[in-house]
Amino acid sequence: MPTHRVAVIPGDGIGTEVMPPAQRLLELAGHRFGFAFEWQNFDWSCEYYARTGAMMPADGIEQLAECDQILLGAVGFPGVPDHVSLWGLLIPIRRAFQQYINLRPIKLLPGIESPLRKVPAGGIDFQVVRENNEGEYSESGGRLYRGLPQEVAIQESIFTRFGVTRAMNYAINLAEKREGRLASATKSNGIIHTMPFWDEILRELGQEHPLLEISEYHIDALAALFVLDPGRFDVVVASNLFGDILTDLGAAIIGSIGIAPSANLNPEGEFPSMFEPVHGSAPDIAGQGKANPLGQVWAASMMLDHLGHPEAGAALVDTMGHVLLETDVRTPDLGGCATTEEVSDALADAFAT
Amino acid sequence: MPTHRVAVIPGDGIGTEVMPPAQRLLELAGHRFGFAFEWQNFDWSCEYYARTGAMMPADGIEQLAECDQILLGAVGFPGVPDHVSLWGLLIPIRRAFQQYINLRPIKLLPGIESPLRKVPAGGIDFQVVRENNEGEYSESGGRLYRGLPQEVAIQESIFTRFGVTRAMNYAINLAEKREGRLASATKSNGIIHTMPFWDEILRELGQEHPLLEISEYHIDALAALFVLDPGRFDVVVASNLFGDILTDLGAAIIGSIGIAPSANLNPEGEFPSMFEPVHGSAPDIAGQGKANPLGQVWAASMMLDHLGHPEAGAALVDTMGHVLLETDVRTPDLGGCATTEEVSDALADAFAT
Ligand SMILES: CC(C)[C@H](C(=O)O)[C@@H](O)C(=O)O
Ligand SMILES: CC(C)[C@H](C(=O)O)[C@@H](O)C(=O)O
Repeated sequence: MPTHRVAVIPGDGIGTEVMPPAQRLLELAGHRFGFAFEWQNFDWSCEYYARTGAMMPADGIEQLAECDQILLGAVGFPGVPDHVSLWGLLIPIRRAFQQYINLRPIKLLPGIESPLRKVPAGGIDFQVVRENNEGEYSESGGRLYRGLPQEVAIQESIFTRFGVTRAMNYAINLAEKREGRLASATKSNGIIHTMPFWDEILRELGQEHPLLEISEYHIDALAALFVLDPGRFDVVVASNLFGDILTDLGAAIIGSIGIAPSANLNPEGEFPSMFEPVHGSAPDIAGQGKANPLGQVWAASMMLDHLGHPEAGAALVDTMGHVLLETDVRTPDLGGCATTEEVSDALADAFAT
Repeated sequence: MPTHRVAVIPGDGIGTEVMPPAQRLLELAGHRFGFAFEWQNFDWSCEYYARTGAMMPADGIEQLAECDQILLGAVGFPGVPDHVSLWGLLIPIRRAFQQYINLRPIKLLPGIESPLRKVPAGGIDFQVVRENNEGEYSESGGRLYRGLPQEVAIQESIFTRFGVTRAMNYAINLAEKREGRLASATKSNGIIHTMPFWDEILRELGQEHPLLEISEYHIDALAALFVLDPGRFDVVVASNLFGDILTDLGAAIIGSIGIAPSANLNPEGEFPSMFEPVHGSAPDIAGQGKANPLGQVWAASMMLDHLGHPEAGAALVDTMGHVLLETDVRTPDLGGCATTEEVSDALADAFAT
């Protein structure tokens, strides 16, 4: 029986509450579909930072490299600046392991009401492929004349042919496996130099895939279309920042940020990939047992897909849909009054039947 | 009787179709409220570009400087690259005249159905203040190793204390005249150097306005909240790019990009300001008489506000609301079958009564 060694980093706040339900469902999936997990637990978090002065040990990346995959809850705690918690853990992992794809399904689950009045006949079901390693998220930039009236701050977006090409190739392959439609987020009507470059690469690659239907949308218009006509999308490819914005917006149109998952993928499997919910550590509701575990469970299902168990991954998503449609066991963010544990139990029950 | 000298640049496509209704309503408003217009017509457009090789003459800015205000339709035509049409006309005007505020009302008009299922009890009614002269829209950047596998493209975002402060002060004043709530779009949880700078300036200015309720939102979460909870906003302040994205998204939640207006303001009145609809030249529907003139009329009403005729400006918006609520005279983008001219007639009738 194949055994997958998974690094588990619950992190802070509700991250620690939503992780056990996800592990429980993964175990159940393993029993049914014939594989097992070996969990490696890491307590890296803001609490760890308070104790040690770092979000993870100096050899943290090496420790993770021993694992097949990483399951992350959420990091962040009031008082610890985001640039510490994120740039001390999340971003280094994304980069060290060349997790250059951030894949986020925008899929309206059965039983969930979209905030949009008109849901397209075919439902809402598309994928956003976000470039996850470069672009607007560069470390390059700084300040001049700090504190003076003349102060200037600069941030450099850096796009490489290497980085853009590999992200687009991933998106193209995905679109070819789905309905063959690829929408690209751009902003080449301004003077933003990097976006015409992005478009050029897309057009070059597009010529090698004549059957693919490729459309380019300015990011402003694209955001509007997520609301006005979400049915038109199959796969959307976007730069790091544009993808960040579009995926939160996408999570909104499928009803709740508490549900949406995110996979930080190293598609070649050379390094571990990392699976996390889109939501954060939510310190305001932490410790009250009312965190929605569905985002973490959905992230776990994406891990199963990536591990080569797509039937098991689909079974987890089906189970979520079943509980949402057939029961009223849901957490407050979805209008219910169930606890995290009650949702976990309902999921385990539904999975068993 | 005060006479306002207004530069009229209909531009391309539907820009030329929606301008006459706006001028007609402005004339009517002048009659009722006691002021007059002297129109200066400029045929600057992509067609002008095809004839002359430039979007406007070399002394175009000087010619516009003789006018009090500028009313712009839309520019852009297939075959003329956006960086020509926009950077040859729209952007130079915004910059030469220090139109450092782009003000966009996000207001659901009576009779318009929002694509959102739950419209807040108080309706949707907030203003987005977009910094319009600097930030992500800089001319700085370029390419290395063009065409080679090693190619790199760089774009610099440049934020100045001068530019950020004046935009925020405008937003603060506006919020103080409204409900006293200011939301700021940021992205300081990443490594983007310019956004902590943006936040710092906001916090400094905020201390001088202790009664103002100031909130900071990450741009991704903010975009989601436009959909999940638009009722919470009063005034939103955002950088050039973030404001660009948020305002198209805002136009979507109030039902149609065909309605939304945009004011490029030089608040001090040292230079002319420019008023335009958010929509573009829409070559696909141009020449068919079915363009929605409401965006241009709403832009005209913002010009009246800026000219110091707020009652006249409000009368124009009321007239639009009246036609939308009491008649079914609306263009196809709003689900009707009226022509531009029929909407224009209905507006003129409604204004007269
Ligand atoms: C046309 C384009 C350059 C422009 C912008 O991004 O400013 C437009 O989208 C707008 O919002 O006015
Ligand atoms: C926390 C933050 C740095 C991160 C990002 O912008 O990448 C988050 O918003 C996400 O989308 O994973």
